[in-house]
Amino acid sequence: MLTLHQMQMSGNCYKVRLVAHQLGIPLRLIDYPVVGTATRTPEFLNLNPNGKTPVLEFEDGRVLPESGAILSHLSDGTRLQPESKWDRACMLQWMFFEQYSHEPYIAVSRYWHKFAPLQEFEKKRHLVPEWHAKGNAALGVMEAHLKSHDWFAGKDYSIADIALYGYTHCAADGGFDLSGFPAVSAWTSRVASQPRHLLLTAV
Amino acid sequence: MLTLHQMQMSGNCYKVRLVAHQLGIPLRLIDYPVVGTATRTPEFLNLNPNGKTPVLEFEDGRVLPESGAILSHLSDGTRLQPESKWDRACMLQWMFFEQYSHEPYIAVSRYWHKFAPLQEFEKKRHLVPEWHAKGNAALGVMEAHLKSHDWFAGKDYSIADIALYGYTHCAADGGFDLSGFPAVSAWTSRVASQPRHLLLTAV
Repeated sequence: MLTLHQMQMSGNCYKVRLVAHQLGIPLRLIDYPVVGTATRTPEFLNLNPNGKTPVLEFEDGRVLPESGAILSHLSDGTRLQPESKWDRACMLQWMFFEQYSHEPYIAVSRYWHKFAPLQEFEKKRHLVPEWHAKGNAALGVMEAHLKSHDWFAGKDYSIADIALYGYTHCAADGGFDLSGFPAVSAWTSRVASQPRHLLLTAV
Repeated sequence: MLTLHQMQMSGNCYKVRLVAHQLGIPLRLIDYPVVGTATRTPEFLNLNPNGKTPVLEFEDGRVLPESGAILSHLSDGTRLQPESKWDRACMLQWMFFEQYSHEPYIAVSRYWHKFAPLQEFEKKRHLVPEWHAKGNAALGVMEAHLKSHDWFAGKDYSIADIALYGYTHCAADGGFDLSGFPAVSAWTSRVASQPRHLLLTAV
């Protein structure tokens, strides 16, 4: 069985659980606390020298970090990836967009608002306006696409949608207001109504 | 012919030129200044609502932003991608690592040190220690891998190497010192000695 080294409330880890659940791939979960240095121990750095979850561990000892790479690997050849080469290029485009232009503001704002110790958050509070401006810009890019498309890559739900859903559907945790993005809100409902959907809190 | 909307000195755009050159794919280049708002005009936002280069434009009008997606699309089925599914997973792992854990510190530090107006840089100078700490951490992750591997994904040079080379080989521009990373330094030489290598400054 595959083992997922994860943090339950991390959107990046949730993406992997959701893909695995929708594809019927069982996962053994090893959970680490969101706050603290559990992914900086020598044991963890031996798994992933970059010190981050998720890490997917195979029975033969191989390990794969980076949620985008894990999503792509698990869903290769399945209905969660488009068939056409062009649509797969668009899928990766949105997955890189999420990691570079979305996650560093929307996920980071959520971490500091919801999980970090309040004293630590006080040192970061001056960054909230920048996180909100750049996160709202990313939501605006999504809104523009979703005004004329149901999904991000091709005509069907794919791992591009899952990658973007991970932190978008809980963006309110970081002080974002999705009511100004009606096409994004409608898309989150479409994602949540897919067969075998899994909630962030489900184990 | 394909058109690349680009900034000549951007490492993300350089990666695309290098891949295209090594695969013998001609590109028409449209260059934008690194400093300023040239990628925030209505015309540019119509190409890429995210307002960033590179953007690859096809003869039929389709456009593809995100260097990682462009590299993957151009090199699909070529010698610049590993054949095995596992090695391709590792390739994407390093490409996502580069965009999330490497570029935001090493490329950003280079931009502010080398290109931004000095008055603007003064407002950001307090961030230099964080950029250097996190950028050096990323170089350390690369060094650990390269101590026992020639290349990042599988046994051969691939777009994972090109993605990481883009900003690593010019990291000194941002105040980084590669002499403390001998395996990284040896790897940059290996990349530069590949057939049909192209310099960052070459048009």
